[in-house]
Amino acid sequence: MEETKIKVGITHGDINGVGYEVILKAFEDSQIFDLCTPVVYGSLKLASHYRKLLNLASLPYQRVDSGAQAKEGMLNFINVIGEEVSAEHGKPTEVAGAAALAALERATEELKSGAIDCLVTAPINKSNIQGPDFRFAGHTEYLQDRLGGDNDRALMIMADNRGLRVALVTTHLPLKDVASALTVESIATKIQDFHTSLMRDFGIHAPRIAVLSLNPHNGDDGLLGDEEKDMIVPAIEEMRKNRIQVYGPYPADGFFGANHQSKFDGVLAMYHDQGLTPFKALSGSEGVNFTAGLPYVRTSPDHGTAFDIAGKGEADAQSMRSAIYMAIDALRSRRNHSEAFANPLRKLYQDRPSRD
Amino acid sequence: MEETKIKVGITHGDINGVGYEVILKAFEDSQIFDLCTPVVYGSLKLASHYRKLLNLASLPYQRVDSGAQAKEGMLNFINVIGEEVSAEHGKPTEVAGAAALAALERATEELKSGAIDCLVTAPINKSNIQGPDFRFAGHTEYLQDRLGGDNDRALMIMADNRGLRVALVTTHLPLKDVASALTVESIATKIQDFHTSLMRDFGIHAPRIAVLSLNPHNGDDGLLGDEEKDMIVPAIEEMRKNRIQVYGPYPADGFFGANHQSKFDGVLAMYHDQGLTPFKALSGSEGVNFTAGLPYVRTSPDHGTAFDIAGKGEADAQSMRSAIYMAIDALRSRRNHSEAFANPLRKLYQDRPSRD
Repeated sequence: MEETKIKVGITHGDINGVGYEVILKAFEDSQIFDLCTPVVYGSLKLASHYRKLLNLASLPYQRVDSGAQAKEGMLNFINVIGEEVSAEHGKPTEVAGAAALAALERATEELKSGAIDCLVTAPINKSNIQGPDFRFAGHTEYLQDRLGGDNDRALMIMADNRGLRVALVTTHLPLKDVASALTVESIATKIQDFHTSLMRDFGIHAPRIAVLSLNPHNGDDGLLGDEEKDMIVPAIEEMRKNRIQVYGPYPADGFFGANHQSKFDGVLAMYHDQGLTPFKALSGSEGVNFTAGLPYVRTSPDHGTAFDIAGKGEADAQSMRSAIYMAIDALRSRRNHSEAFANPLRKLYQDRPSRD
Repeated sequence: MEETKIKVGITHGDINGVGYEVILKAFEDSQIFDLCTPVVYGSLKLASHYRKLLNLASLPYQRVDSGAQAKEGMLNFINVIGEEVSAEHGKPTEVAGAAALAALERATEELKSGAIDCLVTAPINKSNIQGPDFRFAGHTEYLQDRLGGDNDRALMIMADNRGLRVALVTTHLPLKDVASALTVESIATKIQDFHTSLMRDFGIHAPRIAVLSLNPHNGDDGLLGDEEKDMIVPAIEEMRKNRIQVYGPYPADGFFGANHQSKFDGVLAMYHDQGLTPFKALSGSEGVNFTAGLPYVRTSPDHGTAFDIAGKGEADAQSMRSAIYMAIDALRSRRNHSEAFANPLRKLYQDRPSRD
């Protein structure tokens, strides 16, 4: 039993997008407070603005100066920007970029200091957030820099509630740069990291991983590309020697067409659209972006700022809700995993079901 | 009313794959003979072999020398290979490659001579079919060469029975070559050709087309690639001036995640896996590959030779069946379209529903 509820840090993301809306809606059903205490890095003023706009005035909230002061049963807001900042629904502004960054900076500090237990990030606009302190293609790369140690490697995994988990070898790259970014080592490393996360974060004891091919038809014996035989197959063979159950490469279209994903605990795609397009086609609005490989648990909803519907009350909070639940589940799984490996005799063996 | 039934030419594909199995199974329910008369380019000996193997001995069939001699109500086989050729289930052999090519050569001849009305191709192995007479990445490219005139341009469209239609700007290319193969003109041309096919082959009067972006997040204002603003947007604008209802570019993952495909008659993807992976994830075994832009209608099932289950009786004939039906539908649509445009007063106006 946990002595105190898990403190989930949540960054407000782009203040002109649907960030506040999905955060507030996620806590509309108060049952979620039984599982966690939310600490939102943002602005009390903006929170009030969106509460009124969305008719969510009954949501309990307060202002705190640190996650350490957070109270259970309510939304705790930490001001990371000044009172002068207002929302301009649907507009990509410099002010909003700075506000998004301020929330990330404060939340990562508090994660490191232990004021919060895990992190959920609302969507940012990757264009207006760029500046001297943010030169990254996305959240994943930023968090690797801020939270990762020398031996930590961030891995982007998309996961839904039905057991589909897709990880990416390359993430935010122009398509023309994907093939040249692949090496035997980069693919092998991602297989290894995916395997570790499936065990540690998702609680799967002997994960089975499928690897997709880079080229159409698996490269058709070299007619449509050599990366399969030059890089992907050697990486798979190397990881099999490490006793990882990894299979492939499989052509992406045939793989999902035959529903092969149901036979694996994880699917490793070579690049963004190859993995995320079938993932989202199958998972709709229920997907969560999970960052594995870092010392801290971080998730986010799999949608963007959705400027086109910002401020209209039309945003679906399901993905944000799933992101919060998945962060809690992963944190618990990590704690169990650490405990189990710290004292294997007591934990691993006592918990096994009796066969008598 | 049609005086004679539509003659559907069918090539046997790779004789060691599931080609014969899905062809024979597609005609197991004799109702399909009410719609068409099949002419299979292959081998009577192999047909007998697979009929016995699959317990389909009651299927009526005969040997003919040309589609012109085909009889209704039965499978008509044309021998394109010698009696000495046997099946070696699941093996990619040179003999099988030569047999697959012989069927294609004969079927395209008969299509041009008018002995058959349209073409359905069973899957080939793209490796063993290569040789002096076949230096193509796939069926689509071969048929462009054999059946296309100087002004004809083949366009690969995947279609299912629920209205999802995905066309590709580039087809069988290594991933690393995709970005450099795109130009404003190549994208504009595919939009134009897709539009024409949706009207002429699928009978849609004012088709709405969505175009996907090449790079993740639509290139994120240039951070993740320039092809969107340099090529895709100008191509879309050019085609809008031609009064085509074309929209985008849309990031592929978000597009399918939000089910936007249901709002369009066609989706134009930039490359193979971007279009085919979500298509097959959503359509499963029901997809059909349609080659638009040629003077003749050609379809094929969207699966491969499936060597792993060849000769085992486990193949699903649904996609082959759909391919046959879609060829018939497209042929009729083309005939109506030609007739309508040949005599607009009688056809287009008389058929309009009255508004009184």
